[in-house]
Amino acid sequence: MTSTSTITVPATARAAVLTTVKEDYEIKEVDVVQPSQLAAGECLVKVDYAGCCHSDIHVKNNDWGRTRTPMVAGHEGVGHVVAIGENTVGSPVKVGDRVGMKWFANACLKCEMCRLGFESCCTLARTQAHGLSVPGTFSEYTRCWVDYLTPIPDGLDSAAVTPLLCAGLTVYKALKVSNAKPGHWVALSGAGGGLGHLGIQFAVAMGLRVIAIDTGADKKDLCTKLGAEKWVDFVESKDLIKDVQEATGGLGPHAAIVAVGHATPFNQAIMYLRSAGTLVALGMPGPANGMLNIPIALLISKCLNIVGSATGNRQDMAEALDFMARGKVVCHHEVRDFEEVNNALKEISDGKVKGRIVLKVAS
Amino acid sequence: MTSTSTITVPATARAAVLTTVKEDYEIKEVDVVQPSQLAAGECLVKVDYAGCCHSDIHVKNNDWGRTRTPMVAGHEGVGHVVAIGENTVGSPVKVGDRVGMKWFANACLKCEMCRLGFESCCTLARTQAHGLSVPGTFSEYTRCWVDYLTPIPDGLDSAAVTPLLCAGLTVYKALKVSNAKPGHWVALSGAGGGLGHLGIQFAVAMGLRVIAIDTGADKKDLCTKLGAEKWVDFVESKDLIKDVQEATGGLGPHAAIVAVGHATPFNQAIMYLRSAGTLVALGMPGPANGMLNIPIALLISKCLNIVGSATGNRQDMAEALDFMARGKVVCHHEVRDFEEVNNALKEISDGKVKGRIVLKVAS
Amino acid sequence: MTSTSTITVPATARAAVLTTVKEDYEIKEVDVVQPSQLAAGECLVKVDYAGCCHSDIHVKNNDWGRTRTPMVAGHEGVGHVVAIGENTVGSPVKVGDRVGMKWFANACLKCEMCRLGFESCCTLARTQAHGLSVPGTFSEYTRCWVDYLTPIPDGLDSAAVTPLLCAGLTVYKALKVSNAKPGHWVALSGAGGGLGHLGIQFAVAMGLRVIAIDTGADKKDLCTKLGAEKWVDFVESKDLIKDVQEATGGLGPHAAIVAVGHATPFNQAIMYLRSAGTLVALGMPGPANGMLNIPIALLISKCLNIVGSATGNRQDMAEALDFMARGKVVCHHEVRDFEEVNNALKEISDGKVKGRIVLKVAS
Amino acid sequence: MTSTSTITVPATARAAVLTTVKEDYEIKEVDVVQPSQLAAGECLVKVDYAGCCHSDIHVKNNDWGRTRTPMVAGHEGVGHVVAIGENTVGSPVKVGDRVGMKWFANACLKCEMCRLGFESCCTLARTQAHGLSVPGTFSEYTRCWVDYLTPIPDGLDSAAVTPLLCAGLTVYKALKVSNAKPGHWVALSGAGGGLGHLGIQFAVAMGLRVIAIDTGADKKDLCTKLGAEKWVDFVESKDLIKDVQEATGGLGPHAAIVAVGHATPFNQAIMYLRSAGTLVALGMPGPANGMLNIPIALLISKCLNIVGSATGNRQDMAEALDFMARGKVVCHHEVRDFEEVNNALKEISDGKVKGRIVLKVAS
Repeated sequence: MTSTSTITVPATARAAVLTTVKEDYEIKEVDVVQPSQLAAGECLVKVDYAGCCHSDIHVKNNDWGRTRTPMVAGHEGVGHVVAIGENTVGSPVKVGDRVGMKWFANACLKCEMCRLGFESCCTLARTQAHGLSVPGTFSEYTRCWVDYLTPIPDGLDSAAVTPLLCAGLTVYKALKVSNAKPGHWVALSGAGGGLGHLGIQFAVAMGLRVIAIDTGADKKDLCTKLGAEKWVDFVESKDLIKDVQEATGGLGPHAAIVAVGHATPFNQAIMYLRSAGTLVALGMPGPANGMLNIPIALLISKCLNIVGSATGNRQDMAEALDFMARGKVVCHHEVRDFEEVNNALKEISDGKVKGRIVLKVAS
Repeated sequence: MTSTSTITVPATARAAVLTTVKEDYEIKEVDVVQPSQLAAGECLVKVDYAGCCHSDIHVKNNDWGRTRTPMVAGHEGVGHVVAIGENTVGSPVKVGDRVGMKWFANACLKCEMCRLGFESCCTLARTQAHGLSVPGTFSEYTRCWVDYLTPIPDGLDSAAVTPLLCAGLTVYKALKVSNAKPGHWVALSGAGGGLGHLGIQFAVAMGLRVIAIDTGADKKDLCTKLGAEKWVDFVESKDLIKDVQEATGGLGPHAAIVAVGHATPFNQAIMYLRSAGTLVALGMPGPANGMLNIPIALLISKCLNIVGSATGNRQDMAEALDFMARGKVVCHHEVRDFEEVNNALKEISDGKVKGRIVLKVAS
Repeated sequence: MTSTSTITVPATARAAVLTTVKEDYEIKEVDVVQPSQLAAGECLVKVDYAGCCHSDIHVKNNDWGRTRTPMVAGHEGVGHVVAIGENTVGSPVKVGDRVGMKWFANACLKCEMCRLGFESCCTLARTQAHGLSVPGTFSEYTRCWVDYLTPIPDGLDSAAVTPLLCAGLTVYKALKVSNAKPGHWVALSGAGGGLGHLGIQFAVAMGLRVIAIDTGADKKDLCTKLGAEKWVDFVESKDLIKDVQEATGGLGPHAAIVAVGHATPFNQAIMYLRSAGTLVALGMPGPANGMLNIPIALLISKCLNIVGSATGNRQDMAEALDFMARGKVVCHHEVRDFEEVNNALKEISDGKVKGRIVLKVAS
Repeated sequence: MTSTSTITVPATARAAVLTTVKEDYEIKEVDVVQPSQLAAGECLVKVDYAGCCHSDIHVKNNDWGRTRTPMVAGHEGVGHVVAIGENTVGSPVKVGDRVGMKWFANACLKCEMCRLGFESCCTLARTQAHGLSVPGTFSEYTRCWVDYLTPIPDGLDSAAVTPLLCAGLTVYKALKVSNAKPGHWVALSGAGGGLGHLGIQFAVAMGLRVIAIDTGADKKDLCTKLGAEKWVDFVESKDLIKDVQEATGGLGPHAAIVAVGHATPFNQAIMYLRSAGTLVALGMPGPANGMLNIPIALLISKCLNIVGSATGNRQDMAEALDFMARGKVVCHHEVRDFEEVNNALKEISDGKVKGRIVLKVAS
């Protein structure tokens, strides 16, 4: 489990770097961490594919006030381990293994939050987020931590599995914490997007009944094809709350997953949810639309639950991959050249993307 | 289990009636439902004591837009069954039994919500709330439903147990849904009030550690005496969030119970709660301060839960009474004459009441 | 909601009666409860179909020591309400409604067990089991309790839905308490039988992966067709524990549902279950094979759970019917004439029945 | 976080070694692992105190068929870290820290079982049990793994805290998985012993009500003093099942913790438990009394649960220590010289020990 000294790692390689907030990511040569520089527990991954996520736009615009420059962006990827730091003990991966990279690059696995399975609340994890606080996956080579990488099961296509590492994991976890049980209705806001279209498939595979909320004939087709039983177009609907409740037998859905960073769908969910239902918030909104704004009396009289769900933990990731390995979840994605990174992000920002764009990083 | 035809029920009796919204309750003679008028499943209760609750003020002011006039107010009481409707089957109470009356006078016990234990979300229950949609406990005689009355265990003082029927039940249920486990910290906002001071005692009896949030030396003394380990005065504190977190070892409490109808303590709770913690909202606020206003990003990144909790169900009520019967919970109350009802409510409105005021109704 | 006095109810009608323990059920004329004899809360149901269950054999043989004679047998049925006792209040069914009858004819809905959803543990329920302590469904007319009948959704075939009232409910509940989550493996012992073949379908609809354990090519075909991913023939297998574990990826299934009244499959389940897995026992065995016999050390070191599951409650029943109404569960059944009751039970006893035999009761 | 090369570690030190199965442990000089021999992730602990547990007798007698000789015994201890293996990364302890040693010396923290919190089911853990598969705590120096040691909070006495590392952890975990809620009754079999007397205190601190089952006036006094509300002497009782049920209000306790390796108390628990109650098995029995022998019909009709509980995980350990740090749990223990090890184990075997014997190991 030691570093393979014979591996040839170039001195520099291409990466998409944010130099100035709100400017485009710049593709340029950056120094590659050399195997000899890796501490015990660290490794070097050659990145094959990296997914484009709305969060990359928030980072670029410093929407969360935590962006540092220069920063190599990207937080979702699949690649191969090319070197492991000397004296690394008990690594679950070895040189040559295909691995996935997630939003969090590391977690201590020892603190109270890690022990309870809330790895995303680990203090260490919060300081080691890919593409935000440590260099990310928009890079031919990136440093990772062996204990927090995700081994990718054989038989899965590298590009196709990439969006599962962030989008898939996040929406799968949201469904798990929604408390929806087989046979229950779940409403998915943003059902035709990157997270949403995976959410439909996970929900169906979990025995849930999906009412998809989004807009446009294309997205309706996609959602229906993926197994959504009902569809509500939030642009065309004259009374979304009534439409959602009627579509679900009058009482409303048992759970709502809101993968959209606006207050509106949250407030709507509180209105259409069945009593004792659960609203799951996921996906970090930008600052302009960042407030939950809900009548307390309604929350109480309907005995509702609201759950904030960050991305999942290692166990959630393994489970999500298992669903894909069994053919239950297929990611609708389009592979683009690495140089297309800024165009890709612009299309996401414009709401033009159905499914997910994946960049081919390694040449 | 038939009606006792020999019972002497007067034609009229005293009740506190709301005739005009925002005016005082008027004590006057009203018609008493006669035993022969009771349908199967109904009964007549002679009310011994009725508690004064902040909700009686909301009803009076029509804060929820659902007040009808004239209405006999009050929704928390203890009395004795004096007659049961003919042909009543399987009644759990009989003439002569001491019983408690709760916010909800009835529930169908057959709908999905009842079957799942969410009796407060039963459609029938919502149309049969004491003192709001059916005549309440501020009355010498009141009509009730046998299946939804609460038998009071022997050995408990009638006046002392009265506040458990609404305030106690509500705060006990909130603690149950807070997901706090023995050894966990729970913050109680409004700890010195009617709900709060019972909440401290329930929490301690459940193995929880209490940080009491309220104001004034009197309330501090009460809270500490009842078992709160920590105290934060929300008026004197210069940084309530920091004070609460430091008092609970730095990470903040695992749960927060907010029994106050203002946005401020809700927003503070979101800030001071430990990651993965739970905020329970209970107690129906008036319209002016009725919006939950919370940063979505914080909700997500801390993996927080928000739970709306109306009053509890029959099982919760039986459990709460058992705590009192075992001496774990004592209600700080003051007994007043029935005629004092408007003064009592004014004192509550002015925030002058420590614990609970209980009216002696039956002469 | 009063009785329909114009209904013509015959003085006597046919029923299958157990007169002497271990003798055949005798089809003969018995007195029909007349509408005027119904107490409030009771009703008279004309039985259309009744299912044949292994428990009817246990009753006949007095295997549980609780059989009384003469007894009208049968505890699973579908029929129509023909009369409701006078003064019945709040009935969820009305004359003319199609209803289902379950093992328990009634429950008090007020005791601690009922309040907690364990209606099968209600003291009243235990004294009002159809075909054991009160006359059952092998009868053209039978007395029932309105609050405990099950309304049957439109669009379902009466004969086809009959086995859901006992077999379906029981195996659905077992899956619910098995703690298996979508994506988990569940082993079903007796997978090709009455309970088992419904269990496969419920499990698949709940997102579970099924390994079916039974014997014979016919049952293998049925199980595979219904969605079982793996099959182990307990007669042909030379090492059942090893075969089950290998079929489920080496670690063994997360849950095992044993619908067979022998010690052997229980002991095998403890051996093949994944650590932290759950064994659910359901179906009342006869006296000869009635002991669970398990190494305590294995139970502890694997952190296993064993759950005893009687039939489900009203909410479970509603959910199970919803799965059928959505086409997720189809009962493989054969309709026979009422007179065939003893032959049908003999075939079950001989293990010759695939799925369920349903008797056409009303002529 | 590197090894302190200046530390003086002797070449040999005293240890209690099992040389021949069923013979006494022999105290003799053994080689001490030198700091330079420690791999990354390992450390050397100087043992101050080690607890005597019934399992040490099972190891000695090879009751589980897994005893190897020669073996340094003991699996519960408190000491100080004296050296840490070179290149150890992210250690939660440092040289000089006071630490606790548990039954399992290590766990991988990466497998499915570890990710789910069932560290005791980790394959690695099972091959690294102190005193069974790796040298244990009956030794002046012992090798440990930094990630699995337990930091001991300041202010606790080293000898007094020692029994918490195995006995306390095990019984605390059992109470957690018992599903008993505040206000519930829990029966403790073996209430006056090492596990039991800690169990009473944990249960009381968790808001549970304890019925202690054991024998003798001494143990009765101890149990009552520690907070047990009821006492049943299993020798004197003429009908233990009836006595336990009557003592708990007729319905029986909600949970039973059986810390005794005989079939009898298990079978009794199944009989006296309240419907829907839970029996927790813990403590590994010897081979003679190792079979659970329970009527399946009773298990089903009462909807009972049986849970096998091995020792707890890192989070459980931290919680258990917190109870002790808050003064809720005090271990009744007697400190003996290391040389007394065989006498101590004999007294345990003879059932003469109230509480726990702790050996003073380091001279």
